[in-house]
Amino acid sequence: MFRVDLNCDLGEGFGNYKIGNDEKILDYVTSVNIACGFHAGDPVVMERTVKMAVDKGVAIGAHPGYPDLMGFGRRNMNISLEEARAYMIYQIGALKSFVETYGGKLQHVKPHGALYNTAAKDYELARALAEAIYDVDKNLIFMGLANSEMIKAAKDIGLKVANEVFADRAYNNDGTLVSRKFKGAVIHDTEVCISRVLNMVKKGLVNAIDNTEVMLKANSICVHGDNEMAVEFTKNLNERLVENGIALRALKDII
Amino acid sequence: MFRVDLNCDLGEGFGNYKIGNDEKILDYVTSVNIACGFHAGDPVVMERTVKMAVDKGVAIGAHPGYPDLMGFGRRNMNISLEEARAYMIYQIGALKSFVETYGGKLQHVKPHGALYNTAAKDYELARALAEAIYDVDKNLIFMGLANSEMIKAAKDIGLKVANEVFADRAYNNDGTLVSRKFKGAVIHDTEVCISRVLNMVKKGLVNAIDNTEVMLKANSICVHGDNEMAVEFTKNLNERLVENGIALRALKDII
Amino acid sequence: MFRVDLNCDLGEGFGNYKIGNDEKILDYVTSVNIACGFHAGDPVVMERTVKMAVDKGVAIGAHPGYPDLMGFGRRNMNISLEEARAYMIYQIGALKSFVETYGGKLQHVKPHGALYNTAAKDYELARALAEAIYDVDKNLIFMGLANSEMIKAAKDIGLKVANEVFADRAYNNDGTLVSRKFKGAVIHDTEVCISRVLNMVKKGLVNAIDNTEVMLKANSICVHGDNEMAVEFTKNLNERLVENGIALRALKDII
Amino acid sequence: MFRVDLNCDLGEGFGNYKIGNDEKILDYVTSVNIACGFHAGDPVVMERTVKMAVDKGVAIGAHPGYPDLMGFGRRNMNISLEEARAYMIYQIGALKSFVETYGGKLQHVKPHGALYNTAAKDYELARALAEAIYDVDKNLIFMGLANSEMIKAAKDIGLKVANEVFADRAYNNDGTLVSRKFKGAVIHDTEVCISRVLNMVKKGLVNAIDNTEVMLKANSICVHGDNEMAVEFTKNLNERLVENGIALRALKDII
Repeated sequence: MFRVDLNCDLGEGFGNYKIGNDEKILDYVTSVNIACGFHAGDPVVMERTVKMAVDKGVAIGAHPGYPDLMGFGRRNMNISLEEARAYMIYQIGALKSFVETYGGKLQHVKPHGALYNTAAKDYELARALAEAIYDVDKNLIFMGLANSEMIKAAKDIGLKVANEVFADRAYNNDGTLVSRKFKGAVIHDTEVCISRVLNMVKKGLVNAIDNTEVMLKANSICVHGDNEMAVEFTKNLNERLVENGIALRALKDII
Repeated sequence: MFRVDLNCDLGEGFGNYKIGNDEKILDYVTSVNIACGFHAGDPVVMERTVKMAVDKGVAIGAHPGYPDLMGFGRRNMNISLEEARAYMIYQIGALKSFVETYGGKLQHVKPHGALYNTAAKDYELARALAEAIYDVDKNLIFMGLANSEMIKAAKDIGLKVANEVFADRAYNNDGTLVSRKFKGAVIHDTEVCISRVLNMVKKGLVNAIDNTEVMLKANSICVHGDNEMAVEFTKNLNERLVENGIALRALKDII
Repeated sequence: MFRVDLNCDLGEGFGNYKIGNDEKILDYVTSVNIACGFHAGDPVVMERTVKMAVDKGVAIGAHPGYPDLMGFGRRNMNISLEEARAYMIYQIGALKSFVETYGGKLQHVKPHGALYNTAAKDYELARALAEAIYDVDKNLIFMGLANSEMIKAAKDIGLKVANEVFADRAYNNDGTLVSRKFKGAVIHDTEVCISRVLNMVKKGLVNAIDNTEVMLKANSICVHGDNEMAVEFTKNLNERLVENGIALRALKDII
Repeated sequence: MFRVDLNCDLGEGFGNYKIGNDEKILDYVTSVNIACGFHAGDPVVMERTVKMAVDKGVAIGAHPGYPDLMGFGRRNMNISLEEARAYMIYQIGALKSFVETYGGKLQHVKPHGALYNTAAKDYELARALAEAIYDVDKNLIFMGLANSEMIKAAKDIGLKVANEVFADRAYNNDGTLVSRKFKGAVIHDTEVCISRVLNMVKKGLVNAIDNTEVMLKANSICVHGDNEMAVEFTKNLNERLVENGIALRALKDII
């Protein structure tokens, strides 16, 4: 039977600032990536978000980012490998503390934003992240862009990996994402998105932007919960996957 | 045999900013309280400090404070109990993550600065801190001002406690510290400090500022490591305690 | 002819976080208080907000707060007078820089949140704030709670003052605000709010919570723009004031 | 008569963290670059530093950096031109506010650390910085690396420029600095440093690392004040320049 995980970023508020439809999206995903206070999230937001996810039985991952709240972790920062490692251990530990306080168990780690994008291409950085995760808890799963340097580095050190794919993004013929700078990078047609996902999960293939077919392993599909439409799309995707005989399972039951 | 712990704040640098003689003081204390990134400390500093303490075999505690780097956690902040709880779980978790990465085990938690001072008098705040510590790990020791509301709250919820005393501070006849605003609050004569400590550890008594004798339980003595003189004093105190038949032991071997 | 200013907090977003209906409220107020980056606002938000206000011809004030983004400046912090002074000079200067870049002129300064509330009662703090404002530019207007220590301190040092009143808040019989902790502190009936404002502006009187009449000078009325209903209320209030022969003017044309 | 400015970074402390020998270096330099709270400095430190510089009659410049206290502004951040512009207007305004409060006049702006290094090579970024400076006050001087894109961009928009040279750094034969990654990048021999500076100021030439002579205009020489040796070197350099008939003057009297 085909199985796949649906993951979504969560807990991205900060203090007085709210973001997302955290509660609603929890009904349709199997894993969430919770911000850890560097690019978003604060301890109060983290506690509430973790509690909510535990109550709903959704698996929890840490979502560490650059120390850049002003840029929401989306601006690349030229940090050293030593800094990258320490920032991971710190953020994962902080989130893990909330998860365990509420009787849960941290499932995975997915780097956020610019840290994710840079580590996808930079093996050394990816390896520093992977080693930090391994050192905190060698049973954690490293969720990274399918086929990227993150996956390679994690495997190299013996860490479990989850290949993440995107429902609404175009791919190059080498399996990398088409940059958002280019036309066609984001796919807006819901039906196209869903049929692409079905193809990725069932056949391990995606139709690249140049119309060639590319192999792409899909352990988890990234969805969004920060607006009504995104929640609606996720609900839709969730139902269609099930209708097509694909079981939605948290990563820990797949990897 | 008499036993006591010597504790010192550590890892109070931040980024490019150095503070203290962290390496030197480690030879003379049995426990350290490491800053967790809110009032001082950053992940890189925390990693280095934890590694150093583990290497030297000194027991480690978390030293959480208010989220106020600009004020070094020394300015009271009117945070809610919910915020206090979440800030504790976050900071303890972050430090615990480094300690466990290096094969250590977190021994205790000691609130920092204004958070310590406020919780010493405010039972509700003290209880919120104690419950947060308990929820993270019920085997952690809550280190607080001897006889204060922190000790009371921790005991009330079944958490282990360590009564902390100060070698160089005058006490009121109710066992509270004389405020630094008053003359005589800080004792500068080394010999007087040392003989007061010997009295506290051996007899459980301290000579209050009004010359009455006050009962004061001493599980741990707070010393400083942020300048050469403080390190010298600690070395001196360490030797004199041993000469007087007092065993220096980490809290976990006392409580 | 009666004249009054309508003021609203603006530019309270931060990075990726949006807040308020900044653009809409600008059509109905005569002065805005723009956050300066400590409790809310960042340089990009400040630049956009200043530009918008200058374009709409709305007078601009600085809205400095405690350095506490996580608490949105709503938690009291026990800062020293020296710190309070420096935080004012810094924040006012930062905002003034944007205002002058766009050809405007800074009109006033209104402390935010807990800084406002504390300075309303603490003459020493209020005076430190007033002196800082005076030292930056002695022509600035200090906007503070009507009849509070802020007004007194500002007058004592020769700074122009604007007495601020609240349309939707109950008053004690000494002219102070009824704490939000008590029932009846916030008035929800639009018509009641509007008739109270008319009374304050035309007669300088407000009906206190104990039903006595209290003298209350009103140079500026505080309104909100952070949700649709608040914008609607302000539009309504604006129109009713005009219908009742009250001219809406920026502070600089009143004080 | 030959004239040159000696400049030094100042006010790089933060809260409880001290850095540098701020008071001592003021006797030997003619201009200082004061940190503005993003990569270093806080309002209290800024006020004290500005006051000290005004009292000593040393000219003051703003030293804006990336919003990265943890990295001391030394890590490149991929900020947008809009962000770069707003960060400049904010930081310059904040510092200017202190300078004017103490009766001084802001003389120049020198970007800090990674912002300086990136803008030296990136014309677009350099131009965004120059335009921001111009918009705040078109009489400000833009201090940048001699011959760099900063100088070019500032000239292109009609802003006054100061070419900065380094006493202790090796140069490539195109006038750029030899990267610190390479051996020989930093010159440790005091006499060599001083004779190089004399050559730069009197002849506008520097001996490049490949032994060719390169033209290099020197309006200001960068020195350091963060340790005793650096202060001693600056005192020495100051005296030797004077002995060699070179007048030390603040930028405003040179440019």
